[in-house]
Amino acid sequence: MILDGKWRQSAEVTPDGSLLILDQRDLPHRISWVTLTTPEQAATAITEMWTRGAPLIGIVAAFGLVFAVRNNPSDDNFNTSYQYLVQTRPTAINLAWALNRMRDVLLPCPVSDRYAVALETAKQLIIEDIETNKAIGRYGLELIKKHFQQHNHKPVNILTHCNAGWLATADWGTALAPIYMAHDAGIPVHVWVDETRPRNQGALLTAFELTNHGVHMTLITDNAGGHLMQHGLVDMCIVGADRVTKRGDVCNKIGTYLKALAAFDNQVPFYAAVPLSTFDHSLEDGVKEIPIEERAASEITHLSGMTSQGELAEIRLTLEGLRVANYGFDVTPARLVTGIITERGMRALPTS
Amino acid sequence: MILDGKWRQSAEVTPDGSLLILDQRDLPHRISWVTLTTPEQAATAITEMWTRGAPLIGIVAAFGLVFAVRNNPSDDNFNTSYQYLVQTRPTAINLAWALNRMRDVLLPCPVSDRYAVALETAKQLIIEDIETNKAIGRYGLELIKKHFQQHNHKPVNILTHCNAGWLATADWGTALAPIYMAHDAGIPVHVWVDETRPRNQGALLTAFELTNHGVHMTLITDNAGGHLMQHGLVDMCIVGADRVTKRGDVCNKIGTYLKALAAFDNQVPFYAAVPLSTFDHSLEDGVKEIPIEERAASEITHLSGMTSQGELAEIRLTLEGLRVANYGFDVTPARLVTGIITERGMRALPTS
Repeated sequence: MILDGKWRQSAEVTPDGSLLILDQRDLPHRISWVTLTTPEQAATAITEMWTRGAPLIGIVAAFGLVFAVRNNPSDDNFNTSYQYLVQTRPTAINLAWALNRMRDVLLPCPVSDRYAVALETAKQLIIEDIETNKAIGRYGLELIKKHFQQHNHKPVNILTHCNAGWLATADWGTALAPIYMAHDAGIPVHVWVDETRPRNQGALLTAFELTNHGVHMTLITDNAGGHLMQHGLVDMCIVGADRVTKRGDVCNKIGTYLKALAAFDNQVPFYAAVPLSTFDHSLEDGVKEIPIEERAASEITHLSGMTSQGELAEIRLTLEGLRVANYGFDVTPARLVTGIITERGMRALPTS
Repeated sequence: MILDGKWRQSAEVTPDGSLLILDQRDLPHRISWVTLTTPEQAATAITEMWTRGAPLIGIVAAFGLVFAVRNNPSDDNFNTSYQYLVQTRPTAINLAWALNRMRDVLLPCPVSDRYAVALETAKQLIIEDIETNKAIGRYGLELIKKHFQQHNHKPVNILTHCNAGWLATADWGTALAPIYMAHDAGIPVHVWVDETRPRNQGALLTAFELTNHGVHMTLITDNAGGHLMQHGLVDMCIVGADRVTKRGDVCNKIGTYLKALAAFDNQVPFYAAVPLSTFDHSLEDGVKEIPIEERAASEITHLSGMTSQGELAEIRLTLEGLRVANYGFDVTPARLVTGIITERGMRALPTS
C-alpha cells in the first residue's frame, strides 16, 4: 500500500534473499525498516513485535526457516529451527500453517536443493498472501457496496478492532482490504478505529494506515463501541483473526468478544475477514481449546510517545509494583459472528 | 479511608468554611490537596476533574453555592451561581440533586441567614454521603458474604470499572464500599480493576485506593473483562453510576455497557451501587434520554506518567491531527442489570 507516496509491502525480499520488514515498534512516529538475515532475528522480530499480524508473522517465520537452511540444510537443523520458530507466539495458527507448508515442501527435498526451494516457497507465501487478501477485499467490498446501495448511498460506518491491515500482512490486510477497496471504488466509508489497549495497534497502526491512504476515520477508546452501536453509528464490524475453529469461533485481539456482544445486542453485522489458513479444523470450542498468550505487564503499565520536544519517550502510567494480568486474545463464539469473509467468499457458519 | 496511614476524606471542610479536596490530577504519582474558596474554583475543580465521581462533584458544587452566598447572598447571585455550577458536567444527576437541595433550603431563607444555612447544609451533605455509602457497603457486603459462603469460602473475584471508591465520594465510595467492608470483615476478596480509558481512573485511582487499603487486586485492560468472565474468573461485577432511570437503566463511565453484556452472556451477576439520589425518576429510556458528555480529544491522544528519571511528563501517543471522538459515558439497559444496591437495600428492577 502507499507509504510516503510509494507502494510498499510490509515484508519485501531483497536481491540477496534477506527479508526487509517495516519495523512497527516506533510507528507512527518513526518509519524505519529492518533487514532480517538469521533465524534468531526472525524469531526476535516476532516475539518482540517488530512485526505482527497473524499472516505476516507466518511469512516472517517462514523466512526464519529460509535463513536456517541457508546456514545448514540438514534435517536436524531444520527440525530444531522449526521448533524454535513455532513457539514464538502461541495463538495465531498461520504461524504453524506457514512453517508446516515449508516443512512439507523441504523435508522431501535433497539437502543440496533445500535453500533454493525454501526461498522460492517463502517468496510464494508472500505472493499468495497478497492475492488472498485482494480476494478477501473483493468479497468484503460486495458487502459494503450492498449496504451502501440499500441505505440511500449514505457513508458506511465500519468499526474495526486492532490492526488487520496491510501492516499485519504482506499487503492490503484482511479486515481492512474491503475498506481500501470500497474507498478506491468511490464508496464513502468511515472507520471507527478502536485504540486497542494495551499495545494500541488501532491508535498507532490502523490510524496510520488509513490516514496514509486517505480513508476517513475516527479514533475511539475500546470502551466506546457499545455506545456507538446503541446509537446507530456503526453499520458493520469487520475484524481480523488469529485462529478460527471448525465451528467458527473467532480468536482475535483481546476485546473483540466485547464488540461482538455489542454488535449482536444491536443487530449490527459482525464479520471476521481471514485467509482460510486461519482456520484450525482440529478445534471446535475456541473458548476451551485455543491457548491464549499472556504478555508482559509493562505493555499495560508503560507507554511510549512523543514529548512536546518531539522526542520519543516512555512513561510509567501506574504505581510501581501493581499486579497486572495481560491476556493478548479472546474468543468470540460463532453464535455472535454474522459471517467469515475468506478468499473463497463468505464462509457459512453452522450456527448463524 | 486510609491514606499515608491516616484516615482522610476526599473533601474536608476547614474551620473557616473552605473546602479542602484531594487533587486527583497527579494521582497516584503525587498526593496534593487544594483549598477551594470561590464558586469559580469549585466549577474549575469539577470541569477540569481535579475532583470527580458523581457523589463528590455534587458536594463540591454545593460548596460552590456556599462560596457564592458568602460573597453575595441575593437571589440573583444565587440563581446565577446555580446555573453556572449545574452546567459544569451534564451527565451525573447528583450534581443537580445536590444543587437543588441547596436551593430548596436557601431560597426560602432570609438573605442574612443564607451563608450560615448554606454552610450547614453543605456540611450535612458530606455527613449524609458518608452514612449513605456505609449503608450501601453493608448491603453489598451481604451479597459478597452470601457468595463466599455458597462457594466453599473461596476468594470472591469482583470486577469493577472506573472509580466509584472513596475518591469519588466524601468517603468509602459506592461500588467499592462493599469491597472495603468485605475486606475489613476478613472475607478474601480480589478485585479485577479495569484500566478505564481514556482517563484511566481504574489504573490510577482504583488501584491506588485498593492498594493503600491492602485489598488484593489485579489491573487489566478494559478489553480483558469478557475473556475473564468466559473463563469463570469473575464472580460478580459492581460498578457505580452517574444516573439511573426510573426503570433501572444505568448510565456510567463509557465501557460499562460492554462489561454488562459480557456478564449477562456468562451469567455473572452485575450490580450498580448508588445512592438513591442517583435515580432520575423523570427518565425511562436511558439510551434515548440521558445526555452523554463528550470530552476533549487530548484525553485519548495524550497521557501523563512518570519518566525513568522520576519526573511527571506528558506524551502524545498518536499521530497529530487525528479525528477523535471521546464519549464519557454509556447506558446499560436495565435488562442486563441484576440489581441496584442502594442505602435502603437492593432496588428491585422491573425487568430482572
